[in-house]
Amino acid sequence: RINGDRLWDSLMEMAKIGPGVAGGNNRQTLTDVDAEGRALFQSWCEAAGLTMGVDRMGTMFATRAGEDPDALPVYVGSHLDTQPTGGKYDGVLGVLGALEAVRTMNDLGIRTKHPIVVTNWANEEGARFAPAMLASGVFAGVHSLDYAYGRKDLEGLSYGDELTRIGWKGEEEVGARKMHAYYELHIEQGPILEAEGKEIGVVTHCQGLWWLEFTLTGREAHTGSTPMAMRVNAGLAAARIFEMVQEVAMAAQPDAVGGVGQMQFSPNSRNVLPGTVVFTVDIRTPDLAKLDRMRAEIETRAAAICEDLGVGCSVEPVGHFDPVTFTPELVGTVRSAAEKLGYSHMDIVSGAGHDACWAARVAPATMIMCPCVGGLSHNEAEDISKDWATAGAEVLCHAVLETAEV
Amino acid sequence: RINGDRLWDSLMEMAKIGPGVAGGNNRQTLTDVDAEGRALFQSWCEAAGLTMGVDRMGTMFATRAGEDPDALPVYVGSHLDTQPTGGKYDGVLGVLGALEAVRTMNDLGIRTKHPIVVTNWANEEGARFAPAMLASGVFAGVHSLDYAYGRKDLEGLSYGDELTRIGWKGEEEVGARKMHAYYELHIEQGPILEAEGKEIGVVTHCQGLWWLEFTLTGREAHTGSTPMAMRVNAGLAAARIFEMVQEVAMAAQPDAVGGVGQMQFSPNSRNVLPGTVVFTVDIRTPDLAKLDRMRAEIETRAAAICEDLGVGCSVEPVGHFDPVTFTPELVGTVRSAAEKLGYSHMDIVSGAGHDACWAARVAPATMIMCPCVGGLSHNEAEDISKDWATAGAEVLCHAVLETAEV
Ligand SMILES: NC(=O)NCCC(=O)O
Ligand SMILES: NC(=O)NCCC(=O)O
Repeated sequence: RINGDRLWDSLMEMAKIGPGVAGGNNRQTLTDVDAEGRALFQSWCEAAGLTMGVDRMGTMFATRAGEDPDALPVYVGSHLDTQPTGGKYDGVLGVLGALEAVRTMNDLGIRTKHPIVVTNWANEEGARFAPAMLASGVFAGVHSLDYAYGRKDLEGLSYGDELTRIGWKGEEEVGARKMHAYYELHIEQGPILEAEGKEIGVVTHCQGLWWLEFTLTGREAHTGSTPMAMRVNAGLAAARIFEMVQEVAMAAQPDAVGGVGQMQFSPNSRNVLPGTVVFTVDIRTPDLAKLDRMRAEIETRAAAICEDLGVGCSVEPVGHFDPVTFTPELVGTVRSAAEKLGYSHMDIVSGAGHDACWAARVAPATMIMCPCVGGLSHNEAEDISKDWATAGAEVLCHAVLETAEV
Repeated sequence: RINGDRLWDSLMEMAKIGPGVAGGNNRQTLTDVDAEGRALFQSWCEAAGLTMGVDRMGTMFATRAGEDPDALPVYVGSHLDTQPTGGKYDGVLGVLGALEAVRTMNDLGIRTKHPIVVTNWANEEGARFAPAMLASGVFAGVHSLDYAYGRKDLEGLSYGDELTRIGWKGEEEVGARKMHAYYELHIEQGPILEAEGKEIGVVTHCQGLWWLEFTLTGREAHTGSTPMAMRVNAGLAAARIFEMVQEVAMAAQPDAVGGVGQMQFSPNSRNVLPGTVVFTVDIRTPDLAKLDRMRAEIETRAAAICEDLGVGCSVEPVGHFDPVTFTPELVGTVRSAAEKLGYSHMDIVSGAGHDACWAARVAPATMIMCPCVGGLSHNEAEDISKDWATAGAEVLCHAVLETAEV
């Protein structure tokens, strides 16, 4: 049994760093508060006797030695970065749950054949630098290091420069580490477990995603003195594309979503029709063929909408992963652990992307989910109970021990 | 005859201050470059023998003495502030055209009974601080000084603080000056004069405006793991309101416009459905009853759109003026001057708002327009010919001399 109070205290302690405006957190990637959170995590890892390694993407790997010098480590983690108005648990539970598992092993004097590496992946959220899961993507060979370093935030600051600035650019080659297995505990961020009254989600798959960044080019003009017929209205085109994405997502039901979270008008002045409108469409479904159909339909219909208005339209994919099937053997290990510990559980598909999705490309991998209140996440009001956190970390600990071989 | 080359040189000289990124200007209200532009204008006024006064809103009044100590001055001006991606002529032509008229009077030794005051109104554009025509609005008693000082830009900086910071908060009580008449030369900012092949627009009216700032409140949630049916989607509501505004404006044809120039998503992260969307609807028509009908229809339909999506909706008017009828006697003076000078001319309604609209509430007032290429304004590519500028300033000079009594 893990120590649920200690886990909870650590969660609350971490939440003090980069507080939000409404009870949650704003600890975005590569900010000063991200550095502060990393330092706190590092101090906890050292206190638990772990050895820290940092790679060139800034991912932190805290190793608990194993008994077999030749055995590959079991990696266990998630991320400590948050959305600008994020919750206290999204990502953090997975990192501190892994730390709690190791602390429990220390308490009980449990040794494993395989080393265990508590991992804090850099820039999971993708809020400041698209795409999400950037460091695990480089680790898995999906992105080059140069691509990642060149990603820019809305202020034009780059990942590479900001990583250097906060002092967390490590020496390790990204992806050089080989994994025996990868486990990640995460809050569901959706409504299913709570609605079904289950304590544990056994994650079998993750839905695929496209982030399509649209740049619409209209003609800047006076909102008052420019007749309707003369407008090259990029804002109107954007509005029509929003509505169309909604239609495409509704037509793709069940098990599909589509929406827009980021939007910039330029010059963004009340009496200037925008010259440029940039926004990102986010579409997801666990069905690869459907995902590609949705993307094709959105791009075709957006082009027609823009053509009709004389608006220029270019689309750049700034995030993508295919649907993922997690490793059946590890999924079975999680299910058995939940069963053995007496937790109610169900199989579930992850609606959000996770570092586990990229890790699954280079190692056996799976995830464990716990419920969250009202399915709410990416919201400062995100909430979970201490019991849910404890159950998740306990199942994580048992599954990891099984795979790391006591 | 005025000196068209000198006027043009001054326009080009002023355009060097606060250059834009595409050949135009970014000399927004109360920025450092606004202060630089003001200093240059002041130096020109001093060289022309004018006496500078500045009021508490930062409006600059440069007086050429008249011969009758009891005669009220004729005010002539416009504004030197620009949009973030503005042109070189919007506003500037009116201020420097007035200065050129005075320089010409100096050259020719012409004295007038009434003093002439070359005026640079502060914050005409309303780009940084809504509403537009803020200083002339306070001058005309439409807004209080406190209201104006409290207006905030997107960074949260206030008009009052920024005015103090750039060092242009004058001592004069705003609106204390009494005007014999007010004239303003401006580029049309629309396509009519060029299309009709006329050099001079005799401005008889100005259309009315509402700026309706909508704040839509949705629920921040994960774009991936939040099922479509659970979304409280403020972005989708905004898109539907855009389309509805377009419909309302099209149904109100002819002589009506509606659009959106400013838009903010919050937290503006690609994988977060926005919790708040703020945008400003700009509607205009010269017909007061129609303007009010459009506003009512937009507010009613927006409320229904939001209710349907469960999105909160509040509307704050952040700019407004009723349609204006300029003073027939002065309009006649402008028409006669154009006629006498042999310029082709036509009567025209201003599509944009101008300081003359507020001045018209406290004095006889009117405007003169010159064409602009393709009707384009609020765009760095805004363009006029030297001949058009010369014709406009010449008509201005003659009309002012008529009213100021040689
Ligand atoms: N778990 C999570 O919120 N990850 C961010 C990437 C995504 O948008 O799914
Ligand atoms: N002339 C001009 O562009 N004024 C700004 C106020 C408006 O939006 O009409």
